[in-house]
Amino acid sequence: MPNVRFLPDEITVEARSGDNLLDLAAGAGVYVPASCGGDGVCGKCRVLIESGEAAGGQQNVIPEAERRQGYVLACKTSVMSGDLVVRVPVKAREVGRDLRRKPKTTRAIPARSLDSLVGAWEIDPPVEKRFLKIDPPSIEDNVPDLQRLMRAIRKGCLDCDEPTYDHPELLRTLPFILRQSGWEVTVILLRGKREEEPDRIIAVEPGDTTGRFYGLAVDIGTTTIGGVLLDLNRGQVIAESSVYNGQIAHGEDVISRIIYSQRPGGLKTLQGKVVASINQIIAATCETAGIAASDITYIMAAGNTIMSHLLLGLDPKFIREAPYVPICNQMPLTRAAAIGIDAHPSMRLFLYASVASYVGGDIVSGVHACQMYRSPALTLFIDIGTNGEIVVGNDDWMICAACSAGPAFEGGGIKHGMRAASGAIENFHLDPETLEPMIITIEHAKPKGICGSGLISIVAELLDARVIDQQGKFDRGRKHPRLREGADGFEYVLAWAKDTMTGEDLMITEVDLDNLIRAKGAMFAGYVTLLESVGMTFSDLERVVLAGNFGAYIDLERAIAIGLLPDIDRGRFFYLGNASLLGAQISLTDHKRFRERTQVSRLMTNMELSESPQFMNHYMASLFLPHTDMGLFPTVRERLAERR
Amino acid sequence: MPNVRFLPDEITVEARSGDNLLDLAAGAGVYVPASCGGDGVCGKCRVLIESGEAAGGQQNVIPEAERRQGYVLACKTSVMSGDLVVRVPVKAREVGRDLRRKPKTTRAIPARSLDSLVGAWEIDPPVEKRFLKIDPPSIEDNVPDLQRLMRAIRKGCLDCDEPTYDHPELLRTLPFILRQSGWEVTVILLRGKREEEPDRIIAVEPGDTTGRFYGLAVDIGTTTIGGVLLDLNRGQVIAESSVYNGQIAHGEDVISRIIYSQRPGGLKTLQGKVVASINQIIAATCETAGIAASDITYIMAAGNTIMSHLLLGLDPKFIREAPYVPICNQMPLTRAAAIGIDAHPSMRLFLYASVASYVGGDIVSGVHACQMYRSPALTLFIDIGTNGEIVVGNDDWMICAACSAGPAFEGGGIKHGMRAASGAIENFHLDPETLEPMIITIEHAKPKGICGSGLISIVAELLDARVIDQQGKFDRGRKHPRLREGADGFEYVLAWAKDTMTGEDLMITEVDLDNLIRAKGAMFAGYVTLLESVGMTFSDLERVVLAGNFGAYIDLERAIAIGLLPDIDRGRFFYLGNASLLGAQISLTDHKRFRERTQVSRLMTNMELSESPQFMNHYMASLFLPHTDMGLFPTVRERLAERR
Repeated sequence: MPNVRFLPDEITVEARSGDNLLDLAAGAGVYVPASCGGDGVCGKCRVLIESGEAAGGQQNVIPEAERRQGYVLACKTSVMSGDLVVRVPVKAREVGRDLRRKPKTTRAIPARSLDSLVGAWEIDPPVEKRFLKIDPPSIEDNVPDLQRLMRAIRKGCLDCDEPTYDHPELLRTLPFILRQSGWEVTVILLRGKREEEPDRIIAVEPGDTTGRFYGLAVDIGTTTIGGVLLDLNRGQVIAESSVYNGQIAHGEDVISRIIYSQRPGGLKTLQGKVVASINQIIAATCETAGIAASDITYIMAAGNTIMSHLLLGLDPKFIREAPYVPICNQMPLTRAAAIGIDAHPSMRLFLYASVASYVGGDIVSGVHACQMYRSPALTLFIDIGTNGEIVVGNDDWMICAACSAGPAFEGGGIKHGMRAASGAIENFHLDPETLEPMIITIEHAKPKGICGSGLISIVAELLDARVIDQQGKFDRGRKHPRLREGADGFEYVLAWAKDTMTGEDLMITEVDLDNLIRAKGAMFAGYVTLLESVGMTFSDLERVVLAGNFGAYIDLERAIAIGLLPDIDRGRFFYLGNASLLGAQISLTDHKRFRERTQVSRLMTNMELSESPQFMNHYMASLFLPHTDMGLFPTVRERLAERR
Repeated sequence: MPNVRFLPDEITVEARSGDNLLDLAAGAGVYVPASCGGDGVCGKCRVLIESGEAAGGQQNVIPEAERRQGYVLACKTSVMSGDLVVRVPVKAREVGRDLRRKPKTTRAIPARSLDSLVGAWEIDPPVEKRFLKIDPPSIEDNVPDLQRLMRAIRKGCLDCDEPTYDHPELLRTLPFILRQSGWEVTVILLRGKREEEPDRIIAVEPGDTTGRFYGLAVDIGTTTIGGVLLDLNRGQVIAESSVYNGQIAHGEDVISRIIYSQRPGGLKTLQGKVVASINQIIAATCETAGIAASDITYIMAAGNTIMSHLLLGLDPKFIREAPYVPICNQMPLTRAAAIGIDAHPSMRLFLYASVASYVGGDIVSGVHACQMYRSPALTLFIDIGTNGEIVVGNDDWMICAACSAGPAFEGGGIKHGMRAASGAIENFHLDPETLEPMIITIEHAKPKGICGSGLISIVAELLDARVIDQQGKFDRGRKHPRLREGADGFEYVLAWAKDTMTGEDLMITEVDLDNLIRAKGAMFAGYVTLLESVGMTFSDLERVVLAGNFGAYIDLERAIAIGLLPDIDRGRFFYLGNASLLGAQISLTDHKRFRERTQVSRLMTNMELSESPQFMNHYMASLFLPHTDMGLFPTVRERLAERR
């Protein structure tokens, strides 16, 4: 892998061919001014390639003379196959030098650690395709077609139970498939839920189709639905796709979806929308892989309790009303085609069980993936979102809770908040002296708004530069063009109108800061309340697992700096990414791991934080950056002291 | 019970109030001339009431003078509450006196013996209704509705497995039923197929509905469908109904139904017809009992393999083609509503398993009812019809076979053959001297044709009077107006045109006799072949069970006389009636008996007689009245010798 050495900071990072220089600098904690998010228009991120060859484009905003010297726009330049030495102009670096001492971005978790967390899994799926050559009937042996098929399935297994089967699809077509195929067929078997349960014949296909054996893992998020198509013969992902949940048109969060479901026809509409989104995933992944939707033999899905209800057409009405009761936690195994999914009529859709109304199958799937229920090490599992879900436990017990953090992390309640989409500020550095920003947006588009990870970066940087105090209030004494009194109170201008996609100034306000503090405070209060309920503290935690798409993008140091994550040894944090999708994928590949899932939901005990006075106390104490009890954040305290 | 004493034969029989005098005489073997079947028009069955009071009507065909002496038409007179002495006029009795010595009609089997055969059954159905008062949810206890329901079901049973349940009907309605009923509901549970299997929740109803608990037992015959509605709380039959199978319009026998099923839309039409017939039974029995169809919690049915296939919409195509392979023997448990039956959407329809293409669930149900698989006594189980089915065995083993007897017993291939309906000759006596007949028809209508039991009576009487020889040929030397050469060869006129419903002569021909001999020969060859295959003979038989509606009407002595039944101790014969319906009824009432059924089908081994050279040999030897080997029919031989 090529190395990129940033001068004058003397910071060297490993890069991959194609990596963007601005992203690399931001990730390594090297400050480079950037106003336009990486769109190539502000021209501020000029750097000098001192050695090596880089791929560039759209450099015409740089004056001809500088270009000839070797200056390029970092945001439009990427690594090729060889090493690079990149000098950030001294003027730009003036006061940023101290960043070098402690890179603020801690992203790399050794692959080894992640493996130790998730463990190995076998290629031994809960469905099986088996090619059978069946003896044709004769007058001496004229047992029925079904019995003949079962005999062939059990051949060589004397103590196997007779498989069960799907009526009526199977029985209607079986005699014709057997005869037209010359008694050579492939049977698709679904293994029993428990070891002692008999297998189930879900389909019979003419000829040998064992080479075509695919499964789909799906994470049904309130906002996004992600799918992974697996070749079950090889245990490999062969296509991936992700789409917005089509229900978004009827409400951004689960509560508004529940409200919509209560309109006449609303439940049916919402079910149709999520099914259509899953069908998009199926169409896209099947096209990529060059297979037919009917080649998919199993769909393993996970979603929160409300998403699971809506997908199955179950009324979520009572989830919203105290005492918050879902219809069921164990979701019934469903024929995908029965709810409108483009699949073979016999194919099953499995949905992970929920634990409670607000701790759903996505969390269970994530816990299942990271196997915290198999280790004696005390683990804190966190999925940050509108409803932050928290699980604490080990191989003996697990308690979990949902805390209503509010929508700040997903852009809600933030003046210029937005979801993680093109043009969202996702990374941010601030020159503490000049107060000029380094803005990185998703897809390097002109900045349009702020997504969750960007918000955390911005608040952490503003706090670090003492532009705001620990209560999230701006330093009124500090005079700067970017600091001003706006329509919603005091604010900091992140990008000027000329650099934004909207053509208007883009800022963060004190109201935004307040909402962020409430959101992170709810999460933190959740950790403390759960730990306290079992007589433990953060020092007992051996591992913190960050799940969820958002979790995968969190900057660890900054999340700790604002008090969203506990200030403990960084080596104990693991990024699991989309743990829900990973759990579904593991279950789809390894039936032994799949069967373990019952253990998971059995071990998880839900705690209703909304009714806990302890939670309320901890919440109040958490409405501070990072916390009113700075003893809980020793490294942050030390850093803030240095800044003074 | 009143006694009726017939003079001058001095035969006394027990009667019930309302019994018809002509029927009583025929049943007791007392000859009374009768040409019009009991319609009251021929006026030949005049008898003198010497003592007691009888109910009469339509006596105006008797001359006034005779009427004043006390003469009545036997066919229009019935027993009241007191004893009767009835004199049959001497002229009519001239040569009939010897009938007295051995009544030809042996119908009464002590109730005790039948009980010993069928055994007792408990009122403990495979479905259960249970009223539950459920704790409403609270914030401290907000488990999902389904889990709450299951907890209430398992209350007090710590080691009970969690019940399974029906999705999606249950989950869609559960939250509303629970809340609208104030958490007081009745759950309908279906017990696990095996002891270790968990129960299944099939429905939840608001309030306490345990008082309304009904089940339907159905026998799905090719010709007739019979149903019995049971109060499952009391184990009592509360309504019965029987209708023709609506499929009859598309063919009289199973083969023509299979042929029809191969037309475009034919299978769907036939399924619709049998479903409509079952719906008629449901409507009729529910109306009688004053309940709603949705109050029926379970339907237990039995039918032959073809009827079972057609009911479930399964193509019977390959049953007709060698090597005669059905799709399945174990019929899947089906939701009745899914195939169009008027029932609660969750209610199950159970169909007895078949053994082979031509030994169906009706036979298994009959064997299940008579429990021959529980007794060490060697038993021969016979169901006579177009396809006669035979089972031989005991508690160790059972073999079974179907013999294609042809349709003679159901009126097919007989010039004036008909099904057992109004106007069919069902009983027949012949004055051996005058060759004048005593004809009894169903419903005492004018004679219209001959049904199976009538045919057996006629042939036995013709043989006994030596009008035909043992090869079924008429004695050409005997001159009588009723014996003549007709269009189809030699024939005997049973009724003259003036006495018949059709207004034409009604006769039995030599072709008819030949067809009857083939039919009974096939049955008898079946018994011998099955017994021989296990190295046994008739003397090893401890019990012969006659099943089926037709079996219930067979005159034992006459059936033996023509060689349809073996000539063994009459005390070993049992009339079981509609054994298939009885089996379904027992299964519906007692889940322990129900669970035993798997044992039944496991023990039964099918033998293909159509391919057996032994069967063909025995068949050829049986084409004689009663048999070429008269050593097999000692009492018949003795009787025939007396006649010479």
